[in-house]
Amino acid sequence: VLVSLRRLLGDEAVRVDKPARVGHAYGQSYGDLVRLRAGYVPNPPDAVAYPADQRDVAALLSWAAERDIALIPYGGGTSTTGRLEPPTDGRPVVTLDLSHLNQVLSVDVRSRTARVQAGIDGPSLETHLNDQGLTLGHFPQSFEFSTLGGWVATRSVGQQALTYGTIDTLVQAVRVVTPVGILTAGDSPVEDAGPNLLQLLIGSEGAYGVITEAVLRLRPLPAVRDYRGVLFESWEEGLEAVRVIVQESDLRPALIALFDHSAVAAYTLLNHEQRGLRRMADALGRYIKPRRADFSPGDRALLLLGFEGEGGWTAQQWRQAGKICDECHSISLLRNLSQHWARMRYALPYLRDILISHSVLVGTLGTAATWASLPRIYATMVGAMKGAVIASGGGPGYVMAHLSHACAQGAAIQATFLGRQVGDGDPLALQAQWETVRQAVAEAVVSAGGRMLSYNGLRTVHTLLDDRTNGLRERVLRSLKESLDPLDILWSGDRRG
Amino acid sequence: VLVSLRRLLGDEAVRVDKPARVGHAYGQSYGDLVRLRAGYVPNPPDAVAYPADQRDVAALLSWAAERDIALIPYGGGTSTTGRLEPPTDGRPVVTLDLSHLNQVLSVDVRSRTARVQAGIDGPSLETHLNDQGLTLGHFPQSFEFSTLGGWVATRSVGQQALTYGTIDTLVQAVRVVTPVGILTAGDSPVEDAGPNLLQLLIGSEGAYGVITEAVLRLRPLPAVRDYRGVLFESWEEGLEAVRVIVQESDLRPALIALFDHSAVAAYTLLNHEQRGLRRMADALGRYIKPRRADFSPGDRALLLLGFEGEGGWTAQQWRQAGKICDECHSISLLRNLSQHWARMRYALPYLRDILISHSVLVGTLGTAATWASLPRIYATMVGAMKGAVIASGGGPGYVMAHLSHACAQGAAIQATFLGRQVGDGDPLALQAQWETVRQAVAEAVVSAGGRMLSYNGLRTVHTLLDDRTNGLRERVLRSLKESLDPLDILWSGDRRG
Repeated sequence: VLVSLRRLLGDEAVRVDKPARVGHAYGQSYGDLVRLRAGYVPNPPDAVAYPADQRDVAALLSWAAERDIALIPYGGGTSTTGRLEPPTDGRPVVTLDLSHLNQVLSVDVRSRTARVQAGIDGPSLETHLNDQGLTLGHFPQSFEFSTLGGWVATRSVGQQALTYGTIDTLVQAVRVVTPVGILTAGDSPVEDAGPNLLQLLIGSEGAYGVITEAVLRLRPLPAVRDYRGVLFESWEEGLEAVRVIVQESDLRPALIALFDHSAVAAYTLLNHEQRGLRRMADALGRYIKPRRADFSPGDRALLLLGFEGEGGWTAQQWRQAGKICDECHSISLLRNLSQHWARMRYALPYLRDILISHSVLVGTLGTAATWASLPRIYATMVGAMKGAVIASGGGPGYVMAHLSHACAQGAAIQATFLGRQVGDGDPLALQAQWETVRQAVAEAVVSAGGRMLSYNGLRTVHTLLDDRTNGLRERVLRSLKESLDPLDILWSGDRRG
Repeated sequence: VLVSLRRLLGDEAVRVDKPARVGHAYGQSYGDLVRLRAGYVPNPPDAVAYPADQRDVAALLSWAAERDIALIPYGGGTSTTGRLEPPTDGRPVVTLDLSHLNQVLSVDVRSRTARVQAGIDGPSLETHLNDQGLTLGHFPQSFEFSTLGGWVATRSVGQQALTYGTIDTLVQAVRVVTPVGILTAGDSPVEDAGPNLLQLLIGSEGAYGVITEAVLRLRPLPAVRDYRGVLFESWEEGLEAVRVIVQESDLRPALIALFDHSAVAAYTLLNHEQRGLRRMADALGRYIKPRRADFSPGDRALLLLGFEGEGGWTAQQWRQAGKICDECHSISLLRNLSQHWARMRYALPYLRDILISHSVLVGTLGTAATWASLPRIYATMVGAMKGAVIASGGGPGYVMAHLSHACAQGAAIQATFLGRQVGDGDPLALQAQWETVRQAVAEAVVSAGGRMLSYNGLRTVHTLLDDRTNGLRERVLRSLKESLDPLDILWSGDRRG
């Protein structure tokens, strides 16, 4: 089998050494990291293949179909959904590392589009586009390592999605090599009638084929990035300010995120390693003390708000936003956070690594709610999380949350829990503790009428939702899978298609 | 059969009289209208049913499945895609008129959402929302008659989509009663990971089920609507102004449409019946004459541009847009077109009716292209259209076009052809002439690398595209159809699913 694979791609493009196999065995969820750190890698892929182009990918799919071999597309390896982990059904598994498909094929400056291969990583893509005065503006937390193909496969949401759009709006077309042929979806700048196949392929997690290429919608690099912090006495007042700002049709923030008091306190305490956050926390302290002698830190909330564009425009936007914050009783304003933000924006995954090194249980879950139900859903989620950490043996733990991805209708809440690890370092016990907390929180939120977001690879979400939708979502996804990958060559993680 | 249907819904809710059947036999394409006017209705539905609620709809689907009866969901009857026309496969056909599902179920002012039944028409919906200071902002040309369910089923694009969004972004969730159960898709204000089923149901033309309900994203009613006309010496200069305006990130026009010289001339000549357009044309003439003695009307283009929002904001937007127009050598500016626009915005279908009464062949096709290729695609389309009208026996004819739905990457071009009818009033000959012109134009544009939009029910589009996509689009849509409507109860027009 290996011989035929080497004949297909060339010796250089196939690796079976242990570092390559172990290095492609997991993604980067907490469950992945604790197992990897414990050296628990019982089921790595049998080989890692590096296709050089779309033709190699198509050849690999045919090769795998003839031999009943499972294939796993692999971009930057930052997946948290468990999709990179090989199946245990006895089939040989080859992971397709797409890092050699990393070219910007063409840029149309006049139409602000670029045709780009899917294996390119975030910094390489932006550097190339920035040279021509353009940007994609897609900066997920994994930006430094993750790839265009990964963003498309996971329906990724960048930190500045309010201005630049989520990946599903930034992609004008994708090319997917499926086991039954090459599928190109959405090659028009203006959307056509009919069901939107592009939006089926975006978020497909590689289950229907290997994403090899995309046409991207670009924007000019902004002249000014003006990020500031605004402190509120209470979470409720901060929430109100965010709602009014995003519902104000003249305002278009690039970033709007509201951190609850636990998140603000945690960032202040935890970030010994992060100079930017540390300085921000120090500065916050200096601001608060002289101005409000009676200020209670117990319930404060910090709004991080940023505008990007021409200088005159961002100044005008800030005048308007500042007035709204004043009306919501903001306490103080921290200017010039742009540099701090640039340093801290990708910091949280590193922070998580440090916490895991110190044997701390750590996990994040997301929920989305309308403005009317958001305060209730936030309270439910945070409360359930505290209870679940205790119930899992994690001690009193620590729960912090922030609001992100706000729109006129509502917003997402990301909540992170910290706790004591159980199981004396047994990786499977650690993983089980983490999963237990997540499931308990998801069930509590869904029972309260909320909706969990599955970005964090929460397996229970679709099961819970399916109770509400008569299993029809499953049914549709299964029929798509059978239509595009009838032999199930592309391993789709949990066999849900 | 009729007895069991009446037992199911009640006598009042089932009509088999000729006016009801003939009135539901067609949509409103040119081919539909010429056949209806000629009294050529050989195949109307056998009955028209008026379900009162979602339960009635589900009961009807079961009833039809047991008896091998085809069902056709019917909203406002303004379809131009041929989907309302009964199949000729020998099965009995019942058309489901959804006009009784016309309630706004709830409005959440704080979260700016509304839950609305799918059978509501445009004016009823807007009146209800306007009473609470809100608007959906979706105004397709069929607005006066078409329904929410129809907008969703056809993936409708409103005239002010640049500010308010196309229907696929305005719908937060839909409920579809399918033959295999009730499917609710997308009940979160923030989009989740995974393939987007909502975007499959939007544009499904009723092929997978009956859309009974949607949750809509709303906006506040604008304080000011400031629409103006700007005249350019050439189509190219007008195009350049539009491109710069939509690529300018600070500008957010509600409407931007550029009419070529033939369109401007035609509206001036044809609109005896339309006072608004007439006055606009007169005013144009007055403006042009004194200011540019050397002005040649041969190649001028008219930009219709509008901003909606707070007064200060629209004024600022116009200052910026006006500067761009100046730089593109605009000739003159017509202020205060808002009233004219309000009167003329739904006028074109009426104009078409008048033309058909005068035995004129008339049809419209749309294409989309990036800014880089748009001038070439425009020329190809207009040229092919002129040739095709002549070849069809339509005489020299008349072809006019306008640009619409511009975005940073490109825009759509809608071109309309007029010609002499052939066939001495034989409706099938008229329909064939119209189809011949459309197919010839579509083939020419696609051969030139362009892409046709299928909003006008162009049957050839997907066939042409499928040559490029290995039939995979068909394959996916067929598998969806088999998954959700295995017995093919919901007639899907051309059996394409």
